Amino acid sequence: MPKVKFAPQNKEIDIEPGTNLLKAADQAGLYIEGDCAGRGTCGKCRVKITEGDRAEPTAAEKKHLSSDELESGWVLACQRKVEQDMVIEVPIQKDAHLRKTTLAGGVEDLTAEPMVEKVAVKLKRPAVKDQTADLERLLDHLERPELNVELRELSQLPTLLRNNSYAVTAAITGNRIISIEPGDTTDQIFGVAFDIGTTTIMGSLLDLKTASVLAVAATTNPQNAYGADVISRITHASESRDNLKQLQDKVIEAANNIIKDLLKQTKIARDRVYEVTAVGNTTMSHLFMGIDPTYLAPAPFVPAYSRALEVEASQLGLRINPAGRVTFLPNIAGYVGSDTVGVILAADMDERKDNCAAIDIGTNGELVLVANGRLMACSTAAGPAFEGAQIKHGMRAAAGAIEAVDYADGEIKVSMIDDVPARGICGSGLIDAAAALLDAGLIEPSGRFVNPEENPEKVPDQFKDRLRSGSGGYEFILVKAEDSDTDSDIVLSQSDLRELQLAKGAIYAGLMILLKEAGLEEGDLDQILLAGAFGNYVRKESALKIGLLPQRSSEKTIAIGNAAGDGSRMALASETVRERAKALPHRVEHLELSTRSDFQDIFIDAMAFQK
Amino acid sequence: MPKVKFAPQNKEIDIEPGTNLLKAADQAGLYIEGDCAGRGTCGKCRVKITEGDRAEPTAAEKKHLSSDELESGWVLACQRKVEQDMVIEVPIQKDAHLRKTTLAGGVEDLTAEPMVEKVAVKLKRPAVKDQTADLERLLDHLERPELNVELRELSQLPTLLRNNSYAVTAAITGNRIISIEPGDTTDQIFGVAFDIGTTTIMGSLLDLKTASVLAVAATTNPQNAYGADVISRITHASESRDNLKQLQDKVIEAANNIIKDLLKQTKIARDRVYEVTAVGNTTMSHLFMGIDPTYLAPAPFVPAYSRALEVEASQLGLRINPAGRVTFLPNIAGYVGSDTVGVILAADMDERKDNCAAIDIGTNGELVLVANGRLMACSTAAGPAFEGAQIKHGMRAAAGAIEAVDYADGEIKVSMIDDVPARGICGSGLIDAAAALLDAGLIEPSGRFVNPEENPEKVPDQFKDRLRSGSGGYEFILVKAEDSDTDSDIVLSQSDLRELQLAKGAIYAGLMILLKEAGLEEGDLDQILLAGAFGNYVRKESALKIGLLPQRSSEKTIAIGNAAGDGSRMALASETVRERAKALPHRVEHLELSTRSDFQDIFIDAMAFQK
Repeated sequence: MPKVKFAPQNKEIDIEPGTNLLKAADQAGLYIEGDCAGRGTCGKCRVKITEGDRAEPTAAEKKHLSSDELESGWVLACQRKVEQDMVIEVPIQKDAHLRKTTLAGGVEDLTAEPMVEKVAVKLKRPAVKDQTADLERLLDHLERPELNVELRELSQLPTLLRNNSYAVTAAITGNRIISIEPGDTTDQIFGVAFDIGTTTIMGSLLDLKTASVLAVAATTNPQNAYGADVISRITHASESRDNLKQLQDKVIEAANNIIKDLLKQTKIARDRVYEVTAVGNTTMSHLFMGIDPTYLAPAPFVPAYSRALEVEASQLGLRINPAGRVTFLPNIAGYVGSDTVGVILAADMDERKDNCAAIDIGTNGELVLVANGRLMACSTAAGPAFEGAQIKHGMRAAAGAIEAVDYADGEIKVSMIDDVPARGICGSGLIDAAAALLDAGLIEPSGRFVNPEENPEKVPDQFKDRLRSGSGGYEFILVKAEDSDTDSDIVLSQSDLRELQLAKGAIYAGLMILLKEAGLEEGDLDQILLAGAFGNYVRKESALKIGLLPQRSSEKTIAIGNAAGDGSRMALASETVRERAKALPHRVEHLELSTRSDFQDIFIDAMAFQK
Repeated sequence: MPKVKFAPQNKEIDIEPGTNLLKAADQAGLYIEGDCAGRGTCGKCRVKITEGDRAEPTAAEKKHLSSDELESGWVLACQRKVEQDMVIEVPIQKDAHLRKTTLAGGVEDLTAEPMVEKVAVKLKRPAVKDQTADLERLLDHLERPELNVELRELSQLPTLLRNNSYAVTAAITGNRIISIEPGDTTDQIFGVAFDIGTTTIMGSLLDLKTASVLAVAATTNPQNAYGADVISRITHASESRDNLKQLQDKVIEAANNIIKDLLKQTKIARDRVYEVTAVGNTTMSHLFMGIDPTYLAPAPFVPAYSRALEVEASQLGLRINPAGRVTFLPNIAGYVGSDTVGVILAADMDERKDNCAAIDIGTNGELVLVANGRLMACSTAAGPAFEGAQIKHGMRAAAGAIEAVDYADGEIKVSMIDDVPARGICGSGLIDAAAALLDAGLIEPSGRFVNPEENPEKVPDQFKDRLRSGSGGYEFILVKAEDSDTDSDIVLSQSDLRELQLAKGAIYAGLMILLKEAGLEEGDLDQILLAGAFGNYVRKESALKIGLLPQRSSEKTIAIGNAAGDGSRMALASETVRERAKALPHRVEHLELSTRSDFQDIFIDAMAFQK
């Protein structure tokens, strides 16, 4: 079999001939960025062949790569099949440089109400006149004869007791002893809260006795190799049980890596972690649990379940205490998942009395409205534009992403995350760029670039060489090739603007429908919450300028950070919160926008940048 | 690696050099009879080497095999290591010829009270205006929103519903849906009741709607390869976790073979079997559940648990519906197991008002006494003599076993199971033989053979050539070589008589201690129940003659068949019975005979054949 060597990661692997480089990298444990699951449409899986195979470029490569790039060996990984030995340069991913606050939420004080109770005991030794069995000896001492015990723990019990002078600690949850441990371990009760994003998976390790966060970690969702959006993943999973298993394995492996990282940071023993909570959109929930998501994709978008699922860690292969429990919070509908439940919990929306909307923009966009104590939610087909997908030079909010764009003193200035040369543009940068170009008069309210040939007077001199004709209409050069990290111009294209209009129009229209359903108008809102890492970074002024948020809402709008993840932590720390979560599927009214005859009108209206 | 071919089974297998033939046969999936777990002391693992290895006989072989036998290639499998290619003749085991009534119990009418409820539903199809998730759609229809569902079932639910026009059947137990099945399967609710004997494993398939027994099957307990008695198996298991796993795997595999047989007999689908109950002695229970039995062997004989254990079938690898439940009934003490619980249930001893004793003679001997509503039990070190172990030509009650011996008209006559030439002697034959030889005056009340040299007048002429001096004292030829199936004389030896005296003395003494503890005397007993297959076949007159049963108890004594197995079936069929079983560990007073200063006296006294 041909050997493929990946530099600079220095991994070499035998690859079945005919496998494309995207899959080959996956087999080598490397992640190559890309949004289209190898369909050749996003153009992001760029790698450089330094040795071997110089076959003719494919149509997709010709579309996405310049002739200079092709000349120097750049290809699209999804377009190249391995037929002989090769050496490939894969740009190193900068996961570690995710903006730190991606991990942070706004909720600081968690309530500690651990589900696991620990009792340390010292038992009397058996004797010929006291032949009580080991288990009954323990339960009698605990005065809880009704408790059940894990077979795994019972199996070890005889030796454990005798090796530890009959001094052990029982970890009890509900009516089950899930762990019996040597000596006194009553001070060790830990849990992990996950936020399983379509793009990024985050985990926090909590001390459940104090509800304090001891460590956080994040990683890319490795399901990305099967497409950036949930529909690609549902499609893949629906093709076979093996594919479904593959996607489940990927996310479980990523979660296990996070757990490993958290345990390493804190030097805590794996077996002392007894609880896991997770939130994520409905598709992520299905894939995490290994449940067929096929019927989420076509109308009527029916999930297999809504309720919170609770399973043993060992059943999922999640590497905490094998009898530990994993709770995936409930989803509300096919496209309103437990991540939205997390937002509701974090923002106390199920207990608020005022009128408040929450907008969570991740790979999908969900909206929640509480009005007169009534809770409503909907999802919008916002698409993953704000995470960089479908955007020509779009990327996630990592080092080198343009995160802010300013128009001042007749100049357009860009700022990059970590102040390094630009590699692309992330969601906040995209909104800023559109707002800045609107300010500069380079974009018309309809969303079209001004035509520099028809209306040259509208293009200030200093921008004449930056607004140019590209493959999909006009495009504006945000960063020139010589200043970028990619040796290419980084541009905002007409098609990028269209994606942005569709996304922001959908969110705005969704909010309007929720308000209409509640009998309210924009002005009746007491507060607008922006959830998600995106919400933390987007500039309100820009969001208002492009019409993502209602006019005159600036003062009412606050960013609440990773509220979905906060909700997961709150539910991990407290049984009461978990019960609140479980009640939400019954309580939240889900509006299906596609059934609303009034939606299209509002949506089309909302796509314009200025009204 | 050397190849070993086993004839006439026609199995060939590569064997690691140095492995003994007993282990080699085990690896080939063959069972070679034997009681001493390869220690060379029982002499029963006879096989014939027809090709290869003619090394010198070992001391053990010289002891157990005649020079003719050695000459013609007979060896002890435990004594021969594989060093080169060999062809081995292994006598075919006659499992299929176990006496049919081994399987039968005395309880005919079982109460049907199935734990699994089945509900067939036809759900409304989802629509854009009715996006309720599949699971909630089902639970709403059932009007049981509180039910939990197996992840495995949930995973299949979306496809199952759509492939079956939304018509499915839910199998519910407690608050869990354990199975969701296509169409209407409400008439299919089955279960299997096991009796896990040290020597023989038996299973019955029941229709749980009607509590009727549809099929029965039995097999040798393959743990036999690690010794006929529980102590050998505990010793093996205590050496390593792997050994414990090995013993568990053996019994689970045997149980799976029985299930396969039962399903084949009845053409019932595996997934429609939802419940399993099992009884067995405490060691069998531990090994079945994979729980360390180490501390059962040394005083104070402490089990890991007493309670009934309930686990999912999939956890044990038992091949019924994977979410089906397996309940091993509770044990009472280290040597009073759930088999005794089964006897108590089958004989309604927990509900009787008279004074009644039950004697269950299997590989061990357990006694139960109910007196004035008080329930007491003890185990006796009866040893497995009644199942043929420790007896020179002892064997289980299978085809060719001498099952009855008569002394009439000055002759000693033997009868064999299935009327085939004799292969050995089983428990009932052993007791009969002793009684007959007592009648014939060939055995003294003390248990010694009359000395034909010192007292030739005591040996009638017709027996002069049958009472001879053997390796361990005198022995009586029951069947001559020319009439036997083994080409050897089948004898009753002095040492066999000693084993019998120890066994019957222990049982009798145990009974006396129970009576004494209850303040009763022999005459106060209203009934004596003989449980176990052995009880069905032993002749009361012989048992009375040798002093196994109290004098003048003949009319009070009845055989109740395989009562332990009956108890397992009753508990399988009815929740109420299962609850009765669960209460027994608290209710039955366990007497530890080894702590009684009065036991030795009574025991020594009880060993004599006649008083």
